[in-house]
Amino acid sequence: MSFLSTYALFRKKVYVVIYQTNTKAGRLFDLILLGLILFSVLLVMMETVSEFNLKYHSYLITFEWIITILFTIEYIFRILSINKPVRYIFSFYGIIDLLAILPMYLSLVITGSNILTVIRALRLLRLFKILNNPQFTTQSLKLKRALEASKGKIVVFIYFVLISTIIIGSTMYLIEGKESGFTSIPTSIYWTIVTLTTVGYGDISPQTPLGQFIASFVMIMGYGIIAVPTGIVSAEINKINKSKDVTPQNPCINCDNTDYPGNAKFCPQCGHSLENN
Amino acid sequence: MSFLSTYALFRKKVYVVIYQTNTKAGRLFDLILLGLILFSVLLVMMETVSEFNLKYHSYLITFEWIITILFTIEYIFRILSINKPVRYIFSFYGIIDLLAILPMYLSLVITGSNILTVIRALRLLRLFKILNNPQFTTQSLKLKRALEASKGKIVVFIYFVLISTIIIGSTMYLIEGKESGFTSIPTSIYWTIVTLTTVGYGDISPQTPLGQFIASFVMIMGYGIIAVPTGIVSAEINKINKSKDVTPQNPCINCDNTDYPGNAKFCPQCGHSLENN
Amino acid sequence: MSFLSTYALFRKKVYVVIYQTNTKAGRLFDLILLGLILFSVLLVMMETVSEFNLKYHSYLITFEWIITILFTIEYIFRILSINKPVRYIFSFYGIIDLLAILPMYLSLVITGSNILTVIRALRLLRLFKILNNPQFTTQSLKLKRALEASKGKIVVFIYFVLISTIIIGSTMYLIEGKESGFTSIPTSIYWTIVTLTTVGYGDISPQTPLGQFIASFVMIMGYGIIAVPTGIVSAEINKINKSKDVTPQNPCINCDNTDYPGNAKFCPQCGHSLENN
Amino acid sequence: MSFLSTYALFRKKVYVVIYQTNTKAGRLFDLILLGLILFSVLLVMMETVSEFNLKYHSYLITFEWIITILFTIEYIFRILSINKPVRYIFSFYGIIDLLAILPMYLSLVITGSNILTVIRALRLLRLFKILNNPQFTTQSLKLKRALEASKGKIVVFIYFVLISTIIIGSTMYLIEGKESGFTSIPTSIYWTIVTLTTVGYGDISPQTPLGQFIASFVMIMGYGIIAVPTGIVSAEINKINKSKDVTPQNPCINCDNTDYPGNAKFCPQCGHSLENN
Repeated sequence: MSFLSTYALFRKKVYVVIYQTNTKAGRLFDLILLGLILFSVLLVMMETVSEFNLKYHSYLITFEWIITILFTIEYIFRILSINKPVRYIFSFYGIIDLLAILPMYLSLVITGSNILTVIRALRLLRLFKILNNPQFTTQSLKLKRALEASKGKIVVFIYFVLISTIIIGSTMYLIEGKESGFTSIPTSIYWTIVTLTTVGYGDISPQTPLGQFIASFVMIMGYGIIAVPTGIVSAEINKINKSKDVTPQNPCINCDNTDYPGNAKFCPQCGHSLENN
Repeated sequence: MSFLSTYALFRKKVYVVIYQTNTKAGRLFDLILLGLILFSVLLVMMETVSEFNLKYHSYLITFEWIITILFTIEYIFRILSINKPVRYIFSFYGIIDLLAILPMYLSLVITGSNILTVIRALRLLRLFKILNNPQFTTQSLKLKRALEASKGKIVVFIYFVLISTIIIGSTMYLIEGKESGFTSIPTSIYWTIVTLTTVGYGDISPQTPLGQFIASFVMIMGYGIIAVPTGIVSAEINKINKSKDVTPQNPCINCDNTDYPGNAKFCPQCGHSLENN
Repeated sequence: MSFLSTYALFRKKVYVVIYQTNTKAGRLFDLILLGLILFSVLLVMMETVSEFNLKYHSYLITFEWIITILFTIEYIFRILSINKPVRYIFSFYGIIDLLAILPMYLSLVITGSNILTVIRALRLLRLFKILNNPQFTTQSLKLKRALEASKGKIVVFIYFVLISTIIIGSTMYLIEGKESGFTSIPTSIYWTIVTLTTVGYGDISPQTPLGQFIASFVMIMGYGIIAVPTGIVSAEINKINKSKDVTPQNPCINCDNTDYPGNAKFCPQCGHSLENN
Repeated sequence: MSFLSTYALFRKKVYVVIYQTNTKAGRLFDLILLGLILFSVLLVMMETVSEFNLKYHSYLITFEWIITILFTIEYIFRILSINKPVRYIFSFYGIIDLLAILPMYLSLVITGSNILTVIRALRLLRLFKILNNPQFTTQSLKLKRALEASKGKIVVFIYFVLISTIIIGSTMYLIEGKESGFTSIPTSIYWTIVTLTTVGYGDISPQTPLGQFIASFVMIMGYGIIAVPTGIVSAEINKINKSKDVTPQNPCINCDNTDYPGNAKFCPQCGHSLENN
C-alpha cells in the first residue's frame, strides 16, 4: 500500500472518530472530549480563586498546557480529516475550537490572557451532538421553534421596555438627584432596569417620598409586564405542542376516516381493518 | 409658474418626504431622523455623567443646539406641509415633537432645563412607522389586543393587590416600628410593594421574628400571585393566536357577511346559500 | 300619618340610599362614602409620617373624628334600616364596618390605637358593588373561579415548597453558621424563602463557597418552580376562557343544529330562520 | 390460644394501625404521628434560637428524647409488623424513618449532631397518605405528570442557562475585577446566577459603566428567559387538563379497550361494535 492511500485511510478513520457518533470509537472520543472540556473550564475557574491558585499554581498551569496541546492536535486533525476544511474553520464551532486554544498561546506573550480559555465552555454546546439523544434534540428544536415564533412579539415588547426605561430613568434622575446614588441618567437607567426586572440589588434606592412612589409604580409595572413575554412564549409552546398532536394519519381505505388512535387496528367509524393502511 | 403654485409644489414635496415612507427620499429622511433622535438622547445622557461633561461640555452643548435647530425646522415644516396643522399640533406625536425642542429654548432662561430634552426618547416610538414592517405592526397589534382584552381582569387584580398592600404595610408598621426602617405607613407600604413584587432592595428589612414571619408570608403570596397577571395575559394571547387561525372567509355573495362556521351551508345573517361562495 | 308609618317610610328611604345602587341618591351616597374611605385611609397614613404629623396633628385628629362620627351614623343607619340586622352585623362587611370605627373610640382609652383605623381600607372592597360594573364583576368572578380551580394544585405545591424550605434552611444553617447571619434555623428558613421567591434582600447572604453553591442551586430551583403556580393559573384561566365561548345556544327548531354565531338570524345548516328560537 | 397466634394477631393489629388509614385507630395513629413530627421539627428549630435555648434547653432536650424514643418504637413496630421488612427498610420512607431517629442517638457521641433531626421534616411527606384525600393525590399526580412531561425541555433550558452563566460570569470577572467583589470566576458565576434569577442580593454589584451595561443586559435576558420554563410547564398543564376532559369511557365488551374517539362506532382494537356499550 502506498503512503498516500495509507494517509487517505488514516484520514478517513480520524474523520469517523472525530465527526461521527455512531461508532464505538467516535462515541468514546466524544465522551473524553466532553470530560476534557469540563475539566479545563474547571481549571481556569480554580486559577482565579486566589487561595487555590497560590497553592497549586504549577499544577494548574501544567494541566492547562496539556489540555491545550491535546485540543490543538484535535483542531489540526479536524482540519486535516474534513473534506471542506475552509468551511469548518469559518463555521460557528470551528471558530470556537480555535478560540479555545488561542488564549493559552497568547499568554506566552501577554500574561494573564489564559483566563480567556474560559471560552472553552462554549464547546460544551457540542454536548447535544455527543448525547445524540433524539428526545433532547426534539425538545430543543421545539423550544427553538417556539422562541423563534415569539421573536417578533418579544422584540416589540423589549423596544417599548427600553424606551420606558429611558423616560423613567431620566425622571428618577431629576427627582432623586445625586445624593441618593442617581448620579447620572445612565446610572438611573441602570437602576430602572434593576427595578423593572425585579432584581433589586439595593446599591441604589430612592430616598425621597416622590421617588419611592414612582419606584413603587415601576415595580408594579415590572411585575405586571413580566406577564407579557411569559404569555407570549407560553402561547407559542402551546401552539407547537398542539400541532404535534395532529400528526396526519392515513385515512381508512374503506370510509376515509382519519380520526383514530395511533395504535388502532380497526377503523372506529366503519370497523374496517387498518392493517394495510 | 407663479410663486403660489411653486410653494404648493414645494409644500407637497416636503409632505411626501416628511410624512410618507414609501418613497426613497421619505425613507432616507426617516432614517436620518431616527439617527438624530438616538444621537440627541445619547447627548443628554452623557451630559449628566459629570466626568464626561467636564471634559466635553462645549461639544455636547453645540451638538444639542444643532439638533434642536434641525428639529425646530422639521417641526415648522411638519406644520406647514400638512393640510390640517391644528390637528397635528394637538395630536400625540405633535405634542411630543414640540416638547422635544422646548426644553432647549427654555434652558436659555432656566439653567439646566435642557435635561428635559430627554423626552425626545418618546420620538423613538415613531420607529414602527419608519420601519414600516408589516410583521412588527401585526405583532404589536396582537400584543395590544391581548393586553386590552386582559385589562379588565388586570385592573381587578391590581385593585386587590393595592388594598392588600395598605393592610400589610400598616401591619408591618405596627409590628416592626421605627427602628427597623418602617418609619411610617407610606414607607411600610413602599416596603410591601418592594417585597410583594420580589424586587427586594434590602434598604428596609424586617428584624423581629414576627415581622420576618409575616414578610415570609408576603413573599410566598407575591410569588404565587405573580401567576395571576401572567396567566391572564398568556390565556389572552392564546385566544388571539387561535382566532388568527380563523383565516378570513369569503363574504356571503348576498349580504357580505363573513362571520359563519367553516362548515356552514347557509349564511347565518341572510339565509342565502353559501354553496357557490 | 302616624309616627310609626313615617318612621317605616324613612327607614325604607334610608335602606334604598344605603344599600341600593340603582337610584341617583344611592349612587351619590356610595360615591361620597368611597371618597370618605379613601380620605380617612390617607389621614391615618399621614399621621404616621412624623414631619407631617408634627405640623398638622390637630387637623388630622379633627378630620379623623368627623369621619368616624359619620361612619358611626352610617353604621347605625345600616343596622336600623335593614330587615335582618343581626345577619348584617355578623356578615363580612358588617364586621369590617364595625372595626372601621372602633379603634378611634378605643384611642380615647389607649393612646395610639387610632392607627388601627387603617383597617378602613378593607371597606374599599365595596367598590365593586359601588361601581356596579357588570364587566368588572364578571372579570373578578372569572378570576375567582380560576383561582378556586387552581387551589388544589397550589396547596400541594406550597406544601412541597414549605418542606423544601425547612430542609434547605437547616442545611444552610449547618453550612454557613452564625457568622454569615444564619443565626438560627428559623432565620435560615426566612433566608430560604427570601431567596426562593427571588426577593433577595441581601440582609443575609451566604459567604462560604459551599453555601454560595447551594444558594445558586436554590435560586435556579426557585426560578424554575415559579413556573408551576403560573402554569397552573394560566391553564385554568385558559379553560374558563374557553368554556365561556361555549354558552349553550338553543338548537335550530328545524334541524337541531346548535353551531351558529351568536348574532345569527338564519341557521347555517338548513337556512331556517332563528327568530323564534 | 398459643403465644405464637397471639403474637400473629397482635402483629396484624399493629399493621392495621400503622400502615392503614381506613380504620378509626389507623387514622388516629396517623394524626398523632403528624402532630409529633410537626412538634419535633419545631423543637429542633427552637433549639437553634439561642435566647430560647438558653432558657428552655432542658425542656427541649427532654421532649426531643421522648419523641425520639416514640419514633424508635414506631420504627421497630413498622419492621416487625410488615411482611417484607427488608423492602420497607430500604424504601424511601424506610430510610427517612431511620434517619429521623439516628441523629439523636448520635448526639450521645458527637455533641450537636441532634440538629440533624430536622430531617424529620421529610416525614411530613407522609401527610398525603394520612389525609388520604383523593382530590389532593389527583392534583399532585397531575402536577407530577406535567413536570415529568416538561423535564426534557427544562433540562435543555437549564443546560443553556448554565453555559451562559459560565461565559457571563467570566466576562464580568475580567471587566469588574477584584475591587467590586468579583474576586474569582466561581464568585462571578454566583453573581450571574443571583442576577439572572432576579434574586439580586446586592452583596456583589457591578461598579464600572461597562459592567453595569452588561449587568443590565443579563437582567433583561433573565427577565425574558423566565418566560421559558413557565411557558413549558403552563403548556404541559394545559395539555393534561385537556386530556382530563376525556372522562373514562366504557371498555369495549369484547376486548376491554377504552381508548377510542368519543364518536366511535367500532372498537379500534378488535373491530367489535360499540353500539351496546
